[in-house]
Amino acid sequence: MDITTIVGIIAGMTCVLVAIFMGGGLGIFINVPSIMITVGGTIAGALIAFPLHDILGVMGIVQKAFLYKSPSPIQVIQQIVGFAVKARRDGILALEEEAENVDEPFLKKGVQLAVDGTSPDLLREILDNEIGNLEDRHKLGQSIFETLGMFAFAFGMIGTLIGLVQMLMGMEDPSAIGPSMAIALITTFYGAVMSNLFFLPIAIKLKNRSKEEILVKEVMVEGILSIQSGDNPRVVEEKLRTYLPPKLRNASIEQQS
Amino acid sequence: MDITTIVGIIAGMTCVLVAIFMGGGLGIFINVPSIMITVGGTIAGALIAFPLHDILGVMGIVQKAFLYKSPSPIQVIQQIVGFAVKARRDGILALEEEAENVDEPFLKKGVQLAVDGTSPDLLREILDNEIGNLEDRHKLGQSIFETLGMFAFAFGMIGTLIGLVQMLMGMEDPSAIGPSMAIALITTFYGAVMSNLFFLPIAIKLKNRSKEEILVKEVMVEGILSIQSGDNPRVVEEKLRTYLPPKLRNASIEQQS
Amino acid sequence: MDITTIVGIIAGMTCVLVAIFMGGGLGIFINVPSIMITVGGTIAGALIAFPLHDILGVMGIVQKAFLYKSPSPIQVIQQIVGFAVKARRDGILALEEEAENVDEPFLKKGVQLAVDGTSPDLLREILDNEIGNLEDRHKLGQSIFETLGMFAFAFGMIGTLIGLVQMLMGMEDPSAIGPSMAIALITTFYGAVMSNLFFLPIAIKLKNRSKEEILVKEVMVEGILSIQSGDNPRVVEEKLRTYLPPKLRNASIEQQS
Amino acid sequence: MDITTIVGIIAGMTCVLVAIFMGGGLGIFINVPSIMITVGGTIAGALIAFPLHDILGVMGIVQKAFLYKSPSPIQVIQQIVGFAVKARRDGILALEEEAENVDEPFLKKGVQLAVDGTSPDLLREILDNEIGNLEDRHKLGQSIFETLGMFAFAFGMIGTLIGLVQMLMGMEDPSAIGPSMAIALITTFYGAVMSNLFFLPIAIKLKNRSKEEILVKEVMVEGILSIQSGDNPRVVEEKLRTYLPPKLRNASIEQQS
Amino acid sequence: MDITTIVGIIAGMTCVLVAIFMGGGLGIFINVPSIMITVGGTIAGALIAFPLHDILGVMGIVQKAFLYKSPSPIQVIQQIVGFAVKARRDGILALEEEAENVDEPFLKKGVQLAVDGTSPDLLREILDNEIGNLEDRHKLGQSIFETLGMFAFAFGMIGTLIGLVQMLMGMEDPSAIGPSMAIALITTFYGAVMSNLFFLPIAIKLKNRSKEEILVKEVMVEGILSIQSGDNPRVVEEKLRTYLPPKLRNASIEQQS
Repeated sequence: MDITTIVGIIAGMTCVLVAIFMGGGLGIFINVPSIMITVGGTIAGALIAFPLHDILGVMGIVQKAFLYKSPSPIQVIQQIVGFAVKARRDGILALEEEAENVDEPFLKKGVQLAVDGTSPDLLREILDNEIGNLEDRHKLGQSIFETLGMFAFAFGMIGTLIGLVQMLMGMEDPSAIGPSMAIALITTFYGAVMSNLFFLPIAIKLKNRSKEEILVKEVMVEGILSIQSGDNPRVVEEKLRTYLPPKLRNASIEQQS
Repeated sequence: MDITTIVGIIAGMTCVLVAIFMGGGLGIFINVPSIMITVGGTIAGALIAFPLHDILGVMGIVQKAFLYKSPSPIQVIQQIVGFAVKARRDGILALEEEAENVDEPFLKKGVQLAVDGTSPDLLREILDNEIGNLEDRHKLGQSIFETLGMFAFAFGMIGTLIGLVQMLMGMEDPSAIGPSMAIALITTFYGAVMSNLFFLPIAIKLKNRSKEEILVKEVMVEGILSIQSGDNPRVVEEKLRTYLPPKLRNASIEQQS
Repeated sequence: MDITTIVGIIAGMTCVLVAIFMGGGLGIFINVPSIMITVGGTIAGALIAFPLHDILGVMGIVQKAFLYKSPSPIQVIQQIVGFAVKARRDGILALEEEAENVDEPFLKKGVQLAVDGTSPDLLREILDNEIGNLEDRHKLGQSIFETLGMFAFAFGMIGTLIGLVQMLMGMEDPSAIGPSMAIALITTFYGAVMSNLFFLPIAIKLKNRSKEEILVKEVMVEGILSIQSGDNPRVVEEKLRTYLPPKLRNASIEQQS
Repeated sequence: MDITTIVGIIAGMTCVLVAIFMGGGLGIFINVPSIMITVGGTIAGALIAFPLHDILGVMGIVQKAFLYKSPSPIQVIQQIVGFAVKARRDGILALEEEAENVDEPFLKKGVQLAVDGTSPDLLREILDNEIGNLEDRHKLGQSIFETLGMFAFAFGMIGTLIGLVQMLMGMEDPSAIGPSMAIALITTFYGAVMSNLFFLPIAIKLKNRSKEEILVKEVMVEGILSIQSGDNPRVVEEKLRTYLPPKLRNASIEQQS
Repeated sequence: MDITTIVGIIAGMTCVLVAIFMGGGLGIFINVPSIMITVGGTIAGALIAFPLHDILGVMGIVQKAFLYKSPSPIQVIQQIVGFAVKARRDGILALEEEAENVDEPFLKKGVQLAVDGTSPDLLREILDNEIGNLEDRHKLGQSIFETLGMFAFAFGMIGTLIGLVQMLMGMEDPSAIGPSMAIALITTFYGAVMSNLFFLPIAIKLKNRSKEEILVKEVMVEGILSIQSGDNPRVVEEKLRTYLPPKLRNASIEQQS
């Protein structure tokens, strides 16, 4: 599980709450119409901007991005080098039963295609197509969260404008201006917190997770093609290790020996 | 019909209206000069920025984007696999009568070109050109809505500036400041609502609809070319299914069997 | 003449003026120092940012973009198909006298080059180069107007800052605050109107006009090359009609028959 | 010398100063801490963001961009056509002494390389590399000025925040609020003027100058290669004239005859 | 060590502090809840947006970018020309012991690969891959700092909103408004300073350092390949010197002679 995201959200909420409690109670920061217009307006904007199945689908993408741990590149390389050893010894058809034990559906599919004798060009095309589709879905997720961040901020401001107009219109008792204006500003506060503590950082996180996941998948494609072309297991490992950052590269060597 | 857009607009309007009613009546939020400058200024900006036929044409694009349901990729694949079966059995000329029953004008044109013996290169060029034109029209639609969103916001602010200047100039009775300033702010409110509840989300929606519609058309091109090259119906289906997201891909298989 | 631009500017000015008159007279919105700093600062910024001959040249670009009506693609296609018929019947040299009657200098040059026996590769290179130069000049025009829009807004704000500082410095009589602040805000108002009713929409318009004009020129290049390669007039027409949007495409057919 | 830049800066300063004098004296607009934080903060930001040698180098780039008059494309074309005539008559080696009289170091180097018998591919690679380096240095200059514009604006706001906090903290005498707030706002004013009257327009100017200078250098490369390949002087001129905008192209012809 | 960055940060802090001391004491600018929400919120946003190992890794990137002095291109060229001389005289295998004395790991690896007889294509692929990875890590560093700059500013504003709401809610004593509002504004001040004096300029610096470091590495690749292809040492130097800006190019020559 992606612990830093949870830690970050809790830490951010804590900072905001402590600042609120140090200056008074939480009560004055809770305002139902403000919540309604910010949350409701953001949802409404999203419903107009995206098809329903994309909005529902984004939950899946987020859940997967946070809960699903994509295998580390090192583990994947070790697994593929293992396949290379076996293929070298017993022929590529021997990978058929290995493929059945693979959990990762993308790697499983790739190995099966190689076993089935798919030509290298077609194999790369199919797997690259798959990676391209995955990237598109990740980008859709990011774009939904960026849009939510934009609408949260905008409807926060719209709520504040409504509050200001109402306050200014009904301005009979000067001593009531303060609290009315405070309530008006709370809506901007809601929008800014929703945007900066949830939507925008999660959009950035999705972008980073997407890069990591795609890197792992590219290692898989390269590895399967290398095995298929009959490369020596050592050459397979050498090729795949160039995908690792320098630090991990040495780690990989140590674990291997 | 694209129900979520309507739901989104109604939901957004409801949130705004409830927030308005909870803090007083709707009356104080209606101001004719404010409406005039925001709506009028936005229309004026659009008239200067875009040729008249593009502004009128955008209505068609929007209407089509919201009302016209582009066939689902799965249905299109099934239809094309059907054509592939027929072409395999009776020759590609047998598709001539099939083409007449096709509703989708793009698919119809593609099949007719294939039946007429157009070379694959030319066929792809003609259909890709058609897709490119469609994409340009969609992009024009998005750009018009984004521009409208920008002008709505800008003229909202211009209206508020006019109101503020008038209020400050005529500032004799301090107790009248509140309502005057409220009226000034209403124009910004109009601009922000128009921009964030209509123009910007619709621009994003058009972008998403455009992607979907173009994906379906790309499936059609790939399918027609695959049939023309004499591919086995199973190969045709295999090729086209790589265009589907993983979930839909399995669905497609089930419906087929 | 491009009537919608004029209509748009007049409509926009009318909206602004009606809003001004409904809340008092025009008088309070006229302030010479404010006009001076906004207009003067914008011009000064443009003089620093662009060479003088580009600023003077932009007038020509704008004038041409608004007054010069580029021929409709349909007319151009009909004209080129006419050339194709003649070239087919009497040989390409017969186009020499046709070329002399062509008004459009780009088309004239292209036909003359074809008549002179320029090789297709060189002909395309020369004409594409010409289109590229045209596009660069259009882009320069857009960039000048976008920059003017940016400076108009910025100097509007600078003027308001000057006004605010002067007001706050000399703040002896509280009852004079209102009018002083009004005058300060007028400068922002000037900048916002100049930017949103003139510079920014005209920059967008130039971009759209540029696309249209370049499309027509691309049709001409394609047509001349098609004639030069000895294509059948029907093929020439078929090729060029793919440049038209669907609606115009049918119109083209009707007019032909 | 680039007179419009100087005129623009003087005109802009005049507008600002006249607006200041019409509303009082210059004195209230001079505030040493405000100048210090805006100028100092901008310089500090630049020192952090760019290596020292780049900041010092930008002075050279700016000076060159404003004072150094790059030769007009027409003059360059005439010069190169002259070389072509000589090379045609006396052989390319005859250009050796011509090269020594060339002031422009880029053209000199190109002609010398051609005389030395450098192969066309290598010659183009060396000169394109040189142009690429020049472009990078120009882009660095633009990016430094854009960054300075951003920091000037940001530190203007930071200064205003400092002033506001100090004013609000020490707010005992209500009648002193005005002048204190005026002083706070002056810092934003400084930042906005520095940004919009110096840094941003100069960044745009550098971009435009860069385009012009690179165009002239591309004409030189094309011309040298054309001479080297033994082209007829008329062909050389024809090729180079396509780099000129339509107006200049006719001018070029007249001067030649 | 990168002295200008330290100088810049100290200079910027000094400007801010002098401005603070000239208007009163530092005391009123220290506010614990404001520090907490700005610093805490920025860290929280970063934790959500980036994986923990990237945030920790950025420290290494920054440290390396500021403390590690990448060798100057001139030194690298001299070193490589030395290798070329040796390889020319004693054969490429003679570089094996030279490689062992090289400190720079990238150059060391490149020379060793050349000595091992790696084919030029593979050698370039491996080293380009390495450069690409380095560039990705640098870009990650920039993007983290830009994101920190954005969140610092946003949480500064959120803190100010919290302060304003609390002030307006508890507004019983009008004379207390000033100090309360001052405290609210301090949070925006913190965010703006953190963003503009640390995060944003450091992000720009990383971008510039990255370009320099990559240029040096590209010189190394080019040099190793040139040696491997058996180029004359003078040709090697000639090729590499085109990577230098004009000034450094002459310097290089002088030092050589």
